Parts: sequence; C-alpha cells; structure tokens
Amino acid sequence: MERQKHFLPQDFPALKNDSFLRAAQGQKTHYVPVWCMRQAGRYLPEFQETRAGQDFFLTCRTPEICCELTLQPLRRFPLDAAIIFSDILVIPQWTLMTYMIEGSGSSTMSKAKRWLYQHVDASHRLLRLLTDVIVDYMVGQVKAGAQALQVFESHAGCLGPAQFAEFSLPYLREISRKVKEQLKNESLEPVPMIVFAKDGHYALEDLSRSDYDVVGLDWTISPLTAREQTGNRVALQGNMDPCALYAPKERIGEIVKKMIEEFGTQGYIANLGHGLYPDIDPEHVGAFVEAVHKHSRNLKEQTWTGHLENSL
Amino acid sequence: MERQKHFLPQDFPALKNDSFLRAAQGQKTHYVPVWCMRQAGRYLPEFQETRAGQDFFLTCRTPEICCELTLQPLRRFPLDAAIIFSDILVIPQWTLMTYMIEGSGSSTMSKAKRWLYQHVDASHRLLRLLTDVIVDYMVGQVKAGAQALQVFESHAGCLGPAQFAEFSLPYLREISRKVKEQLKNESLEPVPMIVFAKDGHYALEDLSRSDYDVVGLDWTISPLTAREQTGNRVALQGNMDPCALYAPKERIGEIVKKMIEEFGTQGYIANLGHGLYPDIDPEHVGAFVEAVHKHSRNLKEQTWTGHLENSL
Repeated sequence: MERQKHFLPQDFPALKNDSFLRAAQGQKTHYVPVWCMRQAGRYLPEFQETRAGQDFFLTCRTPEICCELTLQPLRRFPLDAAIIFSDILVIPQWTLMTYMIEGSGSSTMSKAKRWLYQHVDASHRLLRLLTDVIVDYMVGQVKAGAQALQVFESHAGCLGPAQFAEFSLPYLREISRKVKEQLKNESLEPVPMIVFAKDGHYALEDLSRSDYDVVGLDWTISPLTAREQTGNRVALQGNMDPCALYAPKERIGEIVKKMIEEFGTQGYIANLGHGLYPDIDPEHVGAFVEAVHKHSRNLKEQTWTGHLENSL
Repeated sequence: MERQKHFLPQDFPALKNDSFLRAAQGQKTHYVPVWCMRQAGRYLPEFQETRAGQDFFLTCRTPEICCELTLQPLRRFPLDAAIIFSDILVIPQWTLMTYMIEGSGSSTMSKAKRWLYQHVDASHRLLRLLTDVIVDYMVGQVKAGAQALQVFESHAGCLGPAQFAEFSLPYLREISRKVKEQLKNESLEPVPMIVFAKDGHYALEDLSRSDYDVVGLDWTISPLTAREQTGNRVALQGNMDPCALYAPKERIGEIVKKMIEEFGTQGYIANLGHGLYPDIDPEHVGAFVEAVHKHSRNLKEQTWTGHLENSL
C-alpha cells in the first residue's frame, strides 16, 4: 500500500508510444503494434542470468527484479508494450482452479474436470471466490500503473462448449464487468481489457460480446474466421504459431506479411498464438517484431496511396 | 502371410449387427450405434490382468492375446463395434512423425514442429514414406478381416490451419484415396473409412471432402457446427467429453440425450470425443452405451410417430 503512493499512474511520464492502447480500442495507428506473450522469459540469456538461483515467488515480490525482467526484452526489440513480470498463479481464472486441483500440470486436466462433473455447486462456489480475488487483484494492478489487462483462460480446449459456457464464460464476463465497474466507482480511467481463451475456437463470438476490448487468438484460428465471428465488436490479438520462429528469418517475414494482410491493419495487435518457447533464438523474435512493423507500415501506405488514386 | 489364409474375410460368420457399418455409410439404422475409443483399455480390470507383466509389443504380436483384449469390452457392454487391439505406433500419420522426432510425448510438440519449419522438403519425404507404409498396413488389415478403418491425426491442434493444410491434409487424403484404390485393384470390397483429427476444428470442411466416409469429432466441436461444416457429405462420429463419464449415471444419460438430439439419429455413430481414461468406472461406460441405445431408439420412434401423424 505504501508503495502505491510512490507509483501512482498520474506521476508517470507521458507515454511516448500509444499505438498498443489505440489499437486495443480500435483507433487508427501508423503501424500494427506488437508484443509477445512470455516476452520476458527464458529464451533471453539476460533473463536466465537475473533469475539464476532466485526463488520464483521471491522474484515476483521484488519490484526491482520484476522491473529489470520487464524491461529486458524492450532493450532488445522495439516492442509496443511492456508486460509486467508477475506470478501466473495470481492471474488466471478457470485455469487457476485447475492448478489448485491437479496439483501440477496435466495433459487432460481430468482430475479438475472430474471435479466439475462431480461437484457442480462446489465448483461454482470456488470459481466465484476466485473471481472476486482476481477482480481485486486486477483493479490493484491498474492503481499501480497497469494500462491494460489480459485475462488468460489456458484450458478452454479441455472444457469444450458446454463446460465453458457453464464454468468459464460467466466468470470471465463477471471479471471484465466488475473490474470496469470498480474502476468507475473509484473514479479511475477504464483500461483496455484483453481476453485470451487458448483453444477456445468455439467461444469467439461469445467472448466478443463480453465487455472485453480485445480478443486474443491462438494459432489454430484463421484470421478470416476470427473476424467473421467477432464482427467489429472487438480488436483482435495474435496469432502466429510460436514454432514459426524456428523458421529462417525470411520465412518469418513472409508468414507475418500474410498474417497482417488477413487480419488487416485496423483493430489489430500482432502477437504469437501462445507464449515464446525457451529455445527460441532471440534474433528470430527481433525478426518477427521488425516484420510486423515493416509490413504493416507498407500496407497502410499502400491503402493510403490507393485512397489518393481513387480520389484523383 | 500364412496366417491370412486362415482368416480370409469370406470365411467370417455372417454379421449379426451391421448398424455401425450402415451408419458409417449414412444408411438407416434402428438405433444409433456406439463404440468407445480405447474401449479395450486400462479402465477394465480384466484388461490389466491379461496385460500384467507382458511386453507391450509382444502383446501386439500375439493374436490370441489381441483377440482376448478386443473381446473383453464386448462381454461387458452391447457395443456395436469391436476394435482390434493393436499398436498405435503402426497406425497414426503425422502424429507418427511427431513421435519419431520428439522421442516421447510433449505438450507443445515443438521439436517436431521445428523440423517442419526448418526442413520442409525432408518432412515431406518422410511423410510420403509413412503414407505408403500406412496404406499397405491398412490394406493388410482389411485382408485380415477389418471391416472399417480409422485414421487418427492426434496433433491437428498443434499444427494450426496452415501447417495442417501443408503437412497433414494431403497425406490424409492420399491414404483414403490409395487404400480404396488398392482394395479395388485387388477386387476387394471397399470398407468405410473414418478420419479423426483431434483439435482439428478448422479442418472439418476439408476433411468432409476427402474420400472418408465418417469424420470423427473431439468434444470441443458442437454438433450443429459440425453438421453445418460437413453438410451431408459424411457421417459424423463422436463426441462426448470423456470426463463426462465421471458424472453421476443420470447426468450421463442427460448429456447423451442432448448429444443425440443435436447430431440427429441418421448418419451418426456415438462415441467419446477422445479415448477412455484409465480411472473411469466401467459401470459408467455401461451407462453411456445404454443411454445411446435407449435415447436413440426413443428418438427414432418419436420421429416415426411424427411421420405417421403427419400423414394422417
């Protein structure tokens, strides 16, 4: 609490680059903004050095180290957003219940799902509790300076449409509604909210009608399908296959170009369809970021030239 | 080869129950046929007993044991298909390349995918080789008496639309085309072929235009979406969440009823959306099978009564 007094958002220096925030709200930008999930991560040698031998939770509780880890990828690449390095176990929703019950990761999540089928009421009670905690946590993040929020539902693919509609969507909706409500009640500016339901291909339309500003996409969703199902209700974020970063740099450029052409340059934030893997070459991450900026600028200019020619 | 002389399909006793084969070809049946992926599996105590201490590959090469394992679930439940217990490593396609490269399972399959991005030509050469092996193997299965074939692509969700279109779909199509061609060349009757691409929600339309008779679905696909995307080109198979078998028996009945109502009783084979898990109670598997038969018979009768009333 004491710390917050020193870091109130109004004391922040003015933003030099607002393309991410503008795109998240569907406003015009000069190019497509880009960031990478898990951009502060193990693929960076400097990350491994800073983290070496440190306890994970201690790291999360030490603002100086979090700040260093947050800034590391920005020193290397002209990313359009800095992601606060924090503890994934404080952020995720349904997902969180899964980890609580499984005790560890699992490929089928069958223990947690067994719970959902056998203890319907208790599951809802637990999810309601978690929702309240998450709302408070997210509002706290905004008070501490966060200018956008992303909610992950990492296990939508395990759930399927019926369980997602019963056990995830209502809580995801409650989170966005309540966060926005609380910010308003405390006379704070709203921040753009992103929802990313991994493998939730069946839920895109519902998510686009859920008080979120941006819907994140994994790499199994084609841009055209995503635009069809979400209409103009939200901006989209994603979704290059993280493994495409193993390809030669020229090939990465081609994949990025096609992706931007299909998503369009408006209401779009470029990202991967999942987090960066630890064995990705940082130079290829640089090639990805550069390609997004280059091809989206070119595309915007072409469109602009097209407009001019049409009006002559 | 010697063995085949003793087990030629024409020596088989006449089929007592052809509802599975009829449904696979979109023909009328008195009820919806049902089987379960991995129905001969570890959830059965008698399976564990037979398999105890036996080498897995030795089991696969011993026809008497395979026969016993194949028949075990049929002694318990009125299933409409017996699944030959065999070695998964001889059957799957892209999937197979994955296991060859990863050396073991992996949640992201990033090593195999890295290969696809870095060694495009070599990947295609390997997949072509595997395709030929699989075609020969499947034709051999039919000669040995198999009356239907299912091809699994377990990793469609790892691939995404672009890689699936390049590295999986062409080979899946080649398999069905070549198997049917070879059967014809050898004057053998064609058998229904099922394709099941786990997490391949984006590929349903393509799969329904691929010389397969049945498209299998995982539990993330809603029946209505599946029918929309596959038209009347194929029968559908699936797709109850295997974890729904953890629910109380009455609840299983409700879920099955809704599933059949949504798929319809025509051109439909009931199944799970993935294999049975080892900790499923066999009695709940029985409840699933019984519910499919009961609700589909009821639904067929209602439709029939409806027709009668309309014609009066």
